[in-house]
Amino acid sequence: MDRFHRIADAFAQVQKQACLLLETIDGAAFFSNDAWQKEIGTGITRVIAHGSKIEKGAINFSKVSGPVTPSMEATTGISEGTFSATGVSSIFHPKNPLAPIIHMNIRYFELSNGKAWFGGGIDLTPHYIDLDEVRNFHQELKRVCDTFDASWYPDFKQQADNYFFIQHRNESRGVGGIFYDHLMADERSWEKLFDFSVDLGTLYPELYAGILIKKGNLPYSPGQLLWQKHRRSRYVEFNLMYDRGTQFGLQSNGNVESILVSMPPDAQWSYNYSPEPGSEEEKTMNFLKKGINWLEI
Amino acid sequence: MDRFHRIADAFAQVQKQACLLLETIDGAAFFSNDAWQKEIGTGITRVIAHGSKIEKGAINFSKVSGPVTPSMEATTGISEGTFSATGVSSIFHPKNPLAPIIHMNIRYFELSNGKAWFGGGIDLTPHYIDLDEVRNFHQELKRVCDTFDASWYPDFKQQADNYFFIQHRNESRGVGGIFYDHLMADERSWEKLFDFSVDLGTLYPELYAGILIKKGNLPYSPGQLLWQKHRRSRYVEFNLMYDRGTQFGLQSNGNVESILVSMPPDAQWSYNYSPEPGSEEEKTMNFLKKGINWLEI
Repeated sequence: MDRFHRIADAFAQVQKQACLLLETIDGAAFFSNDAWQKEIGTGITRVIAHGSKIEKGAINFSKVSGPVTPSMEATTGISEGTFSATGVSSIFHPKNPLAPIIHMNIRYFELSNGKAWFGGGIDLTPHYIDLDEVRNFHQELKRVCDTFDASWYPDFKQQADNYFFIQHRNESRGVGGIFYDHLMADERSWEKLFDFSVDLGTLYPELYAGILIKKGNLPYSPGQLLWQKHRRSRYVEFNLMYDRGTQFGLQSNGNVESILVSMPPDAQWSYNYSPEPGSEEEKTMNFLKKGINWLEI
Repeated sequence: MDRFHRIADAFAQVQKQACLLLETIDGAAFFSNDAWQKEIGTGITRVIAHGSKIEKGAINFSKVSGPVTPSMEATTGISEGTFSATGVSSIFHPKNPLAPIIHMNIRYFELSNGKAWFGGGIDLTPHYIDLDEVRNFHQELKRVCDTFDASWYPDFKQQADNYFFIQHRNESRGVGGIFYDHLMADERSWEKLFDFSVDLGTLYPELYAGILIKKGNLPYSPGQLLWQKHRRSRYVEFNLMYDRGTQFGLQSNGNVESILVSMPPDAQWSYNYSPEPGSEEEKTMNFLKKGINWLEI
């Protein structure tokens, strides 16, 4: 089997396993299973909603290929030839405001001129900061990165800080995680990058399962629910204004419903809404900054 | 008094009158009155929320001036000198899903090289189409346009169709209205364009007052409320992804809360959410297209 089909199969497996695990943890709702087929390729959109712990979540897999178009030239560096791309992207919005939003993407790109690269990342967006949870999250990401290359975690953590940032509000989307792109794969490094991507895809649902088990059934107040809806509006702003995957998808006439499944189930905007001084909400806001060393906090 | 201060005073008056009228019509909530002063100029942000008929609305006035910056070169056509700008922008989200969202902007721009121009528009976004209401809305806009120039309504109506369009969903934001920009003002036309802007600013609250009186207290169902929240999410998508005023404001480090006061109070996104065949919701969707002659429908 060629490399592209090998990685696409592994990514499809990542999707399947993640759905199985998180469906089991939720215990009430089930993932839909919408397979789609277009001229450009195939994919499976899987969405879960109104669960006991998950309010809305999605894990999408796609495998596409075709001629390089002019709009891809900036990304690919070539103006002719063909490309193949495959990836898994996922997001979960919990019902409980005390649990965080989580997001993951792993992707692979291959050109007919032989160039190939990997990209991806995992990041966490708490509505309420929980330092133990954030420390553990970053430790786990570091642990997986370190298996491959000790320079990756600090590098990819910094890239996540820069990427998951809401410029117009001068606030981070959440507590970051890791983000990487254009990790070029040559004969020597391909297997390593492949293993890294799959390991992240495996770690992702386990991390979130652990969080949902711990937080999914905690009691919460109407005020906390209101705060969650306002934090969700910041997530909307990031996804529609800065997220490259969303913008690329919408500009290239992708499936709107599959792309915007990343939107939260709902969101609220109130004029001059800000937390009470000294509150847990204010404490959370104070942590939405770049450059925090979460491992030693 | 010079022209710039004359128009700024008239725009401030437009804001004041609109607030008075719509506050009276709502009868329960009141507009806040946040005057701001920055190096670049002054403004008043006025917001109303949780009213009997208005769920969230805003009317903002601003008057700014300063040196032309590099980022303005594309808009102004000059790389040095100074500019002055003043405008009123407004949006209302009704509580009742049977009433529409309305939006208005009137603005004036003047450069130190003597060039000056006007821009603006009014448009309507019904959650549920009401052909009589839409016909009357367009008739009123045409009536005001025709007072000045018979070519304006058809021209500006077409510009609104093109501007208020959600590209990635291939659907219009609402039923349009009028939109115009860079109406160059010379010695001869300045007074006419000034009067036109002020007339639109006067018509706007009257149009919406009429609608709220008729629709504000109609009974509605939970299902209609749910539909409203989904239509509001399309409004969010338009404002964050396509609205030039929002993008210009955020890029130029404007006041985030004043700019994003245009966001609806809340919004919902559901995967593959679509109206029942034959329903009022589906009927509305079928009208979200460019090029409809609302005067003769």
